[in-house]
Amino acid sequence: MRIKFQQSLDDLKERLLIMAGLAEQAIQRSIEAYITRDTSICELVLQAEPSINKLEREIDQMALDLLAMEQPMAIDLRFILSVIRINADLERVGDQAVNIAMRVREMGAFANVDLPVDIPRLASLASAMVRKSLQAFIEGNVELAQSVLALDDQVDRMNDAAYQALSTLIKERPELTPQSLNALIIARNLERVGDHATNIAEDVIFWVRGADVRHNPAGAQAV
Amino acid sequence: MRIKFQQSLDDLKERLLIMAGLAEQAIQRSIEAYITRDTSICELVLQAEPSINKLEREIDQMALDLLAMEQPMAIDLRFILSVIRINADLERVGDQAVNIAMRVREMGAFANVDLPVDIPRLASLASAMVRKSLQAFIEGNVELAQSVLALDDQVDRMNDAAYQALSTLIKERPELTPQSLNALIIARNLERVGDHATNIAEDVIFWVRGADVRHNPAGAQAV
Repeated sequence: MRIKFQQSLDDLKERLLIMAGLAEQAIQRSIEAYITRDTSICELVLQAEPSINKLEREIDQMALDLLAMEQPMAIDLRFILSVIRINADLERVGDQAVNIAMRVREMGAFANVDLPVDIPRLASLASAMVRKSLQAFIEGNVELAQSVLALDDQVDRMNDAAYQALSTLIKERPELTPQSLNALIIARNLERVGDHATNIAEDVIFWVRGADVRHNPAGAQAV
Repeated sequence: MRIKFQQSLDDLKERLLIMAGLAEQAIQRSIEAYITRDTSICELVLQAEPSINKLEREIDQMALDLLAMEQPMAIDLRFILSVIRINADLERVGDQAVNIAMRVREMGAFANVDLPVDIPRLASLASAMVRKSLQAFIEGNVELAQSVLALDDQVDRMNDAAYQALSTLIKERPELTPQSLNALIIARNLERVGDHATNIAEDVIFWVRGADVRHNPAGAQAV
């Protein structure tokens, strides 16, 4: 019985990693679409969304069945609750990718001009946060999870800088408003991807340590 | 033992409703700050945030303790999981209020001009969605929860219209860029409040029916 339960936990983890792969792929594709302005990649992102949503429901159902049938205690209970939360965050990362893809599609109608925002760099930082938070989840690695929390400020600062630079550009060159507004919203979407990675990292710490670090980015304080 | 468990569920529900009250108050205050441009109200919103975050952690801990100690089944298990999710959504509603308050504070530096967006109306629709979703939670009322899902499209359309009107204004009157950008972001924040209300309504349906309606707004389809 116990072995079967452990196998179910492993299955749940494996399924969540597939979910993570889909969410990361969606973000990467949406940024590739931004860089190349290739709207066919936007369509790929939009087409993949139903699979992500379907997998989210499957994982929640697996977690719920495990809670109902196995009535796990302590660390196993925290693990399953963490999976439920991480699952929701990954689905929302997928939503951000869809938002970005729709913005890129809208930008296709306007000239591809140089904008004072390094979206690829912001995207690569936000993606690194997601990747590290999931690596921390795979390894149960609290230190790695804490390193993700530190990166979030960097993403926030880049997003703030993008906002300032783009609103200045809009004032000076109002004809570039559509492109600038879309880039501004894409930067915010990436900032939100960083927020979701932060949530995932906090869930890893909660699972391993039993401490709830939310809103206490310094870390180990239990509630 | 069973009576004690029922009492604990009632306590959990009561605590969540206090959380809901704080989140709703935060949104209402942030909109009052927008209407009056009174930055002292912005400060009230920012000051209230730590209490909301603290209460979120307390509720999660109560839910976790109940899951660990009582090992509830079926509808009680779904109730507790719904509380965990609704709790997270309410905390994020509070975050949106903080975002709005910070935008209003920034707008204080610029002339208070007429903008082509009815923020109070959008706010009142988004708040109504939150209120109805919580009413549905109190009553376990699936029909009321479903009425919330229908309102979400309306909020999305209002937000899209605000985006179009404000980006046109920016192009025509670039000197109004700061005010217009801030209003555009406030409209998006309110649209996200509507999304959280939608999540809450879906959780109510999940709790009562055992059906997961996420990404199936039509309703009753089980997974």
